[in-house]
Amino acid sequence: MSPSPLAELVRLKLKLPSPADKTADVDRLFHALKAVGYDDVTVPLELMRRLPAELRSSGFEVSLVIAPQARGFRLLDIGPEAVYGLAMDLGSTNIACALYDLATGEKLDELDEVNPQVSFGSDVLTRVQRAMTGEFDPLAAALKIGMNSLIRTICRKNSISDRTIYAMTVAGNTIMTHFFLGLEVGNIPLSPYTPVSNSPVFLSAGEAGLVINSRAVVYTFPNAGSYVGGDIISGIIFGGINREESPVLFVDVGTNVEVTLGCKDWIMTGAGAAGPALEGGVAAIGRKAEPGTINSVRIDPVSGEITVGVIDGLEPAGICGSGLIDLVSEMFSAGLIDQTGRFTDQAHRVVSRDGVRALALHRAGDKELFITEPEIRNFLVSKAAMFSFLYVFVRSVGLAFRDIKKVLVSGALGCGINPESAIKIGMLPDIPRERLVLLGNSSLGGAGMVLLDRGLLEEVSLLSSRVTYREMNEDSELMNILQGAIFIPHTEPELLKA
Amino acid sequence: MSPSPLAELVRLKLKLPSPADKTADVDRLFHALKAVGYDDVTVPLELMRRLPAELRSSGFEVSLVIAPQARGFRLLDIGPEAVYGLAMDLGSTNIACALYDLATGEKLDELDEVNPQVSFGSDVLTRVQRAMTGEFDPLAAALKIGMNSLIRTICRKNSISDRTIYAMTVAGNTIMTHFFLGLEVGNIPLSPYTPVSNSPVFLSAGEAGLVINSRAVVYTFPNAGSYVGGDIISGIIFGGINREESPVLFVDVGTNVEVTLGCKDWIMTGAGAAGPALEGGVAAIGRKAEPGTINSVRIDPVSGEITVGVIDGLEPAGICGSGLIDLVSEMFSAGLIDQTGRFTDQAHRVVSRDGVRALALHRAGDKELFITEPEIRNFLVSKAAMFSFLYVFVRSVGLAFRDIKKVLVSGALGCGINPESAIKIGMLPDIPRERLVLLGNSSLGGAGMVLLDRGLLEEVSLLSSRVTYREMNEDSELMNILQGAIFIPHTEPELLKA
Repeated sequence: MSPSPLAELVRLKLKLPSPADKTADVDRLFHALKAVGYDDVTVPLELMRRLPAELRSSGFEVSLVIAPQARGFRLLDIGPEAVYGLAMDLGSTNIACALYDLATGEKLDELDEVNPQVSFGSDVLTRVQRAMTGEFDPLAAALKIGMNSLIRTICRKNSISDRTIYAMTVAGNTIMTHFFLGLEVGNIPLSPYTPVSNSPVFLSAGEAGLVINSRAVVYTFPNAGSYVGGDIISGIIFGGINREESPVLFVDVGTNVEVTLGCKDWIMTGAGAAGPALEGGVAAIGRKAEPGTINSVRIDPVSGEITVGVIDGLEPAGICGSGLIDLVSEMFSAGLIDQTGRFTDQAHRVVSRDGVRALALHRAGDKELFITEPEIRNFLVSKAAMFSFLYVFVRSVGLAFRDIKKVLVSGALGCGINPESAIKIGMLPDIPRERLVLLGNSSLGGAGMVLLDRGLLEEVSLLSSRVTYREMNEDSELMNILQGAIFIPHTEPELLKA
Repeated sequence: MSPSPLAELVRLKLKLPSPADKTADVDRLFHALKAVGYDDVTVPLELMRRLPAELRSSGFEVSLVIAPQARGFRLLDIGPEAVYGLAMDLGSTNIACALYDLATGEKLDELDEVNPQVSFGSDVLTRVQRAMTGEFDPLAAALKIGMNSLIRTICRKNSISDRTIYAMTVAGNTIMTHFFLGLEVGNIPLSPYTPVSNSPVFLSAGEAGLVINSRAVVYTFPNAGSYVGGDIISGIIFGGINREESPVLFVDVGTNVEVTLGCKDWIMTGAGAAGPALEGGVAAIGRKAEPGTINSVRIDPVSGEITVGVIDGLEPAGICGSGLIDLVSEMFSAGLIDQTGRFTDQAHRVVSRDGVRALALHRAGDKELFITEPEIRNFLVSKAAMFSFLYVFVRSVGLAFRDIKKVLVSGALGCGINPESAIKIGMLPDIPRERLVLLGNSSLGGAGMVLLDRGLLEEVSLLSSRVTYREMNEDSELMNILQGAIFIPHTEPELLKA
């Protein structure tokens, strides 16, 4: 049972009007609501218009949907038998959503789809530039189409009407949030980098242009700046970082690596380029984690035999980020690649493909899945960038990995990676395993938490003004660490535990 | 200068963004507003979208329109140089409005037009019956057309754009209020007589379908019951009845006579049929008070010569309620009619018109204005109904006229009647003249007060739950008093001072 969702189902039995009680219908409703704790309820005009007939056709026994507001409440509907909610994460590459029954707090389903904006450029800054040169509206429309398509799909799949969705929470990076709200993005990449809004925004679904109940409450997470979006704020809530007594490190790996470090007293965040490697995008066979994707790999150190784990056990069609991490780690452990990522003499099955050396992960009939040497080395550059960024970021506030109570990993990596593999190749710091926590999609998770508990709204608002952004791009130490980190696990392995 | 109008013009100079101050535009606005006392401001999405360009084109120096809400504030616009407001009274027969400059509190103009619903029936109950048999929408539309026509006319006449009207207050009887809000009227005339809403309603002009700024605040006065509308509540505020230490009597004469009696501790109200007489509707030459209407009459007691006062000094085309009162009073004083309203032998100029006796008020060429004997007697029935209702109402709470501190008169009568005439014919109680106060259109006046002072909103809400309705229709004393009141001034003149 959810404590206080953004939209609540309330069943009420009103007293019947009589010559001794001529109270008007709306006022009668107010009195009945007040008696069960809902004081100061706003009733939209269209519901006021429906009220007399709804009351009289039901014998003055009605179900209501009520949304708490900053102060007081708002009536969202009369008559429904179920109240659902959606949490949504607007990623640059994928849009993900989770469906909840707001009466029970139960999570019913989770889905994601490609963000249709990808057709304007996979890089967010490319999209901003196109928006600044006249394509804002088509970009905003593409995002909205993606969101509405996802809403329709998840509703159809779960056989519920989109009109029974009465609340939605939306978390995304600052640029995605601006596209969603239809706010100008042109000042974000220009000094002094000012977004239009960093505040939380409450809209009706009608205003927001979303195909759920038009009166539904739509909450958009606040950003903390041009480089710290609502998705990070949501992730911090999901990871509980702002409630920790001592510092925890939170790593969100999407198209970029976003790192947050802090506790209840202070929180700072930074972002570095991770490259597409960690989402499985470096390899020709790279693929998102979906049925038919390899997400784990084992290599027999004696026979060199490769065993792949495939999502839903289907015939494999590609490999995702966590599969790649496993693959590189296992190849290194089995002696098939050296510290630099090059195939060793022990890699007997290496063949030449289009002039480069490659290893077959899987063969079925005439279909083969290969990983090439350049792909492995590209992957190592990405893992190096990520590790060095973590190292330098933690150092920059005078801490070391050993001071970190927990490392939370979310994003594409946080779904199902083998932490042992990630640590073995020097991608994550070599900390005691029990300190490593995989969060999955933390932005979506935090959006779900707020959907189910409006008590968190205040916490989110506070967070958005507390989180500070730490600029790391011109750090010279970063380049030194990076050079060693391209090797497996690192040229100075002691740094991994430092 | 108005203390706190429903919409305020605020000029702000914001700090410029800089590398040391990357605050987002909306948040920058929030900070600047907070510094001048506007905390917790809601910014509609469409204004958020316009904000970046507005700030940068003005060098971050902007004018804003802000509306206080129940709690906090709402931004209504960016950029305007003037802020106007409208007060409106929805009468069954006429719609009246007054235009205010909300920056100065100055009243700029006042206008009225016929309520187009009159074409569905001059009686409100006829309109309700037609609404109940399928004509609700055309009736509601007719009212809206009338309101918007009046808005356009007053704006054009004063050369202001309707988009610069940011606040509007609307007062009307319960049925008019329901038609305006699009709320079902069908339960009002059926036992137990429950309206849809007696609460105050805040809407945007867009929701309300009014042709002022679409984000403007539209406040609709609460009703106190099926028979006590927002117009009475507004009138009570205008007359200050709820602040009086001892009882005052407030008489609002429109199509009905509505009587309110009370002080700061208690207020009760009742309504009786007045007939159309008092609005000038009994006579063939009856006409509303507008240029060319006779509104005062003097008769030389010696020569019997009749002198008429005409609004704007034009050639007279008819006579209004206050003119009729003057006429009957003067005819009686000059001995032209007797106590029963019949022409006496002294009325030498009486002629026969269509078989009834008539007196010419005015002749110009072949145009003549006549008042007939049956018209005078109809008028006396109306004045009798009004007086008896006042008498019985005051008695019913254990008071007498001599206990009443003030008698406030508003409505058609309250614009320009000669109190001496009204008292002489026994229409109003014979109280010391300084206790009689003419209020004009009190409903419109109260609507203007609230428009200029949101501090009154709380008082209005309290009033609507405090005012009680006193049913008088089956009072047997009423018939006794009425029979004597048909005479001039009354068969028992001592009752007039009782």
